[in-house]
Amino acid sequence: MPRVSEAHLAARRQQILDAAVRCFARNGFHQTSMQDVIKEAELSVGAFYRYFKSKNELIMAIATTKIGEVTGTLDHLLALDPMPPLPVFLDEVITMVETALNADQTVRIAVQVWGEATYDDEVAAVVREVYGRIRERMVRAAERAQTAGQLPADADASGIGAAVFGLIQGYILQSVLIGNLDRETYTAGVRALLGAGR
Amino acid sequence: MPRVSEAHLAARRQQILDAAVRCFARNGFHQTSMQDVIKEAELSVGAFYRYFKSKNELIMAIATTKIGEVTGTLDHLLALDPMPPLPVFLDEVITMVETALNADQTVRIAVQVWGEATYDDEVAAVVREVYGRIRERMVRAAERAQTAGQLPADADASGIGAAVFGLIQGYILQSVLIGNLDRETYTAGVRALLGAGR
Repeated sequence: MPRVSEAHLAARRQQILDAAVRCFARNGFHQTSMQDVIKEAELSVGAFYRYFKSKNELIMAIATTKIGEVTGTLDHLLALDPMPPLPVFLDEVITMVETALNADQTVRIAVQVWGEATYDDEVAAVVREVYGRIRERMVRAAERAQTAGQLPADADASGIGAAVFGLIQGYILQSVLIGNLDRETYTAGVRALLGAGR
Repeated sequence: MPRVSEAHLAARRQQILDAAVRCFARNGFHQTSMQDVIKEAELSVGAFYRYFKSKNELIMAIATTKIGEVTGTLDHLLALDPMPPLPVFLDEVITMVETALNADQTVRIAVQVWGEATYDDEVAAVVREVYGRIRERMVRAAERAQTAGQLPADADASGIGAAVFGLIQGYILQSVLIGNLDRETYTAGVRALLGAGR
């Protein structure tokens, strides 16, 4: 058997995930068969199944790959010293979401995954874990804003972090579901809401 | 043919919708057949199809019925003079969401509907319309808060309204997907974020 490089494996894996994103975005998770994804990926059946055995594996891989990028960016922002003020932090995160919305259909797939998580226990566990990890970072951002005197020191950072995360989830949902919302309008709204003077 | 009262029709309709909510919450929209809903509703096939012809009709009816209640409550809050301060308005809306979360599974179904809307054009159009209507009310709340001097008069109310709506959507998503978030913690976080002093 020929030796296959790590890079080759990663590229084939990504080729499959990109194909799956296109299929799910077009027809939804449930109306997409493994055969549809295999065809879209232009791979042989045998090659395909070396990487993924089921649609659930595909959707989990899509979710976790993207989330890895998101937490990476958040960790970068959190490592800045001093951390930018909370409205700037929010601007940066919302800009990242906008970039992702324009790049491909992965954010739309995320919204499908949230729907799946309401009744599929396996998907629910992954979603709970990965979004819990993101929220944790928002809580850390809130704590740092408190330390920097941008927010009252006696407030519960876990609630503030959840609210900050809520503002980002709201931008995602409204962009995907309602439209008619540009990033500048939303972030200006967030800034006004967060207290213009701070 | 016997005369059937409006009240009877409405009760049967609601009986079906309640059954559908239970089925969709248990197995998801796609793994639920019309036959499953008919069985859960304990109606005859003939009686059932007098009310709903397809799963899409069911999911649209669930979405619009609930949304009617939501807009009703929002209109009530908006009709108060003076309108409560924005943090109190948000408290009231989030309390309404919490009550709905505890009452039945409809909010979880809403998250499934959002997923459907990412690729089903018919569902997408309904979702765009009904959530657009809710966001419009948030924009009106923002305008009234501006008039009352609670927010800077020169800020764009459409962005503030979208951000306010985002805070509510975030509470829904985090409650359903991550858990570990009580209403008091979230609303306290929102208040801290909105500027403790205002």
